[in-house]
Amino acid sequence: MRRAIALAARGLGGTSPNPVVGCVVLDASGEVAGEGFHAYAGGPHAEVVALREAGGRARGGTAYVTLEPCAHTGRTGPCATALLEAGVARVVVAVPDPNPVASGGAEVLRRHGVLVDEGVLTAEAEEGNAAWLTFVRARRPYVTWKFAATIDGRSAAADGTSQWITSPEARADVHRLRAESDAVLAGIGTVLADDPRLTVRPSVDSIAPPAALPASPRATPVLRVVADPGARTPAGARVLDGEAPTLVAVAEDAAVPAHLTHVVRIPRAKGGIDLHALLAELHGRQIVSVLVEGGPTLAGAFLREGLVDRVVGYLAPALLGAGASALGPAGVSTITEIHRLEFASVTPLGPDIKVVLRPKITARQSFPHTDPLGADPQVVQSPKES
Amino acid sequence: MRRAIALAARGLGGTSPNPVVGCVVLDASGEVAGEGFHAYAGGPHAEVVALREAGGRARGGTAYVTLEPCAHTGRTGPCATALLEAGVARVVVAVPDPNPVASGGAEVLRRHGVLVDEGVLTAEAEEGNAAWLTFVRARRPYVTWKFAATIDGRSAAADGTSQWITSPEARADVHRLRAESDAVLAGIGTVLADDPRLTVRPSVDSIAPPAALPASPRATPVLRVVADPGARTPAGARVLDGEAPTLVAVAEDAAVPAHLTHVVRIPRAKGGIDLHALLAELHGRQIVSVLVEGGPTLAGAFLREGLVDRVVGYLAPALLGAGASALGPAGVSTITEIHRLEFASVTPLGPDIKVVLRPKITARQSFPHTDPLGADPQVVQSPKES
Repeated sequence: MRRAIALAARGLGGTSPNPVVGCVVLDASGEVAGEGFHAYAGGPHAEVVALREAGGRARGGTAYVTLEPCAHTGRTGPCATALLEAGVARVVVAVPDPNPVASGGAEVLRRHGVLVDEGVLTAEAEEGNAAWLTFVRARRPYVTWKFAATIDGRSAAADGTSQWITSPEARADVHRLRAESDAVLAGIGTVLADDPRLTVRPSVDSIAPPAALPASPRATPVLRVVADPGARTPAGARVLDGEAPTLVAVAEDAAVPAHLTHVVRIPRAKGGIDLHALLAELHGRQIVSVLVEGGPTLAGAFLREGLVDRVVGYLAPALLGAGASALGPAGVSTITEIHRLEFASVTPLGPDIKVVLRPKITARQSFPHTDPLGADPQVVQSPKES
Repeated sequence: MRRAIALAARGLGGTSPNPVVGCVVLDASGEVAGEGFHAYAGGPHAEVVALREAGGRARGGTAYVTLEPCAHTGRTGPCATALLEAGVARVVVAVPDPNPVASGGAEVLRRHGVLVDEGVLTAEAEEGNAAWLTFVRARRPYVTWKFAATIDGRSAAADGTSQWITSPEARADVHRLRAESDAVLAGIGTVLADDPRLTVRPSVDSIAPPAALPASPRATPVLRVVADPGARTPAGARVLDGEAPTLVAVAEDAAVPAHLTHVVRIPRAKGGIDLHALLAELHGRQIVSVLVEGGPTLAGAFLREGLVDRVVGYLAPALLGAGASALGPAGVSTITEIHRLEFASVTPLGPDIKVVLRPKITARQSFPHTDPLGADPQVVQSPKES
């Protein structure tokens, strides 16, 4: 199963709005006969790839799958049927499918006499599918907040200058992070101050190492989103350069200038737009994961609303002592309200370190099972009541 | 030699104002015959301890010593003589002694026909003696700035509350850090705001793990120092509780209240006291290492003056988004003036991480060879011109 989870990860960035899935098929004697992963939406599922490689050796064998095989016919036929037709005797599943449209594969298999084991390495497999599982269970995209700062938490010097606090290695990693996301989000403050492009580029500059971009090519470019209540994104902004699609999220009452052609209107909330409504809108557009790139105000608002699933920080071995903080007001006024997280990993990255943190979850949260694709993409609604 | 360096480290915190030294003696056949380290000032030197253990087996053997054996008689006899008397055939030295009073041991040994190899694992051995080497070469104590903060660089929430951002494991490590220092320094702002005790305590609270304090007992308690230009340390402050000596560094023109009995007057500089003069004063008192514990203003001043040799940060997996920053103005107004450092280590500590950074040194700095103990301890002078 560990091998299947590793295979699944190779699909990161390519499969949206589908999950990543890996599959290893053993023959009746326990030898590896076939391997596969789901590489892109509309492409063959992991089970089908692995079964194709295994051929006749799958008969009487065992299939290890990171996610319960689907039982419905979408763009591809149901995998449960493919496993039955191949004559697999046993199927080992890490994570049950939370999607009611596609689930039921385990039941179908059992009904036809296949031995099904569930719950093997579930936590590890869920980790690999964290974005998609959040998308399905919480009916919103999985949100990663990324920041780069000095070890004293500053993203710019007192005069606003900020290039380059972190190393080429760290910047290349940001591009990999973007490539794994369906959308990249920045606030209007960052657009006006830094004029970022927010595109995925394989190499940032000449001294950057060859960036390890995801194995799967994306079916569509990463969507750029600007949280811009007042519709102030200037005509010459790099995010409007046409290199990738850009959605400008403005307040319902904003006067939108003619140069903003792709706009979505979102209700106002607390000095900005309603982030729950924004995420619902992106969910409707089948955006499974969003990378929040800044600035401090937007990041603080996401944290305050409890909408951050993962924090990725690039910390440079440097000190500023003054200048903009990486994080702005996040709803904390006294120490007991602090946002507690956990380090998921700490890794060196050139001269810098990369820290990955996740909210500290005391008890496993349960989400209602819902249909991720059933919502009308045009309807904007706030899922706050859920 | 690696073993000798490890032995030397066991003396950290106990040997001031002497260096830490480790020694391994091999017999003529290459077997380990004796080991030793310098444990406390006035106690036997590492070579003497190792030779005592080796006894007659030292004859014709090899001694590995982290620092060039001394050639002078201080509180103990010269080690070069002890090595000669034991009949050691070869001495391997990591670091030449920069102290002109004690150096010359290698020459004495060679003159008597002993083979002396120098420069073995020099960098590693210098690292272990960083504090003492700075004390001797730069004629000031080695300065460590310690801070505890959230991953966004904040040491307190917006309302000033700050207990406990970091874990019991991190707090226990701070006590180990204090125990390895000759003095702990805090600014008057921190004393007034947090009323710290600044003493070394083996266990911070009941859930703290048994703290790994240094192997060597200290000859004297760690000196507490308050940078207090206006002599505002209140009579009831915990730093005046008598548990350890406390020196209050006030400005030359300050009106000192009667309850401040141990006071040193330091010239004023940039809104505080002259830190170069303060360190010169501490050097004169044979303080080899100082731990700067805060707050942000004092830390910023030390950085601005280029007086920080090491930064130790305890970073909690938490976010505040507002409140006091760990570091205040440090003389950086634009990004090109950023204080660049290097990560020396990054280690998990309970739920937190501990980062150790050192200033990025492009070319090896050279210091004049001076006598560390030759200065009159009563004379306060600024070594800025050096």
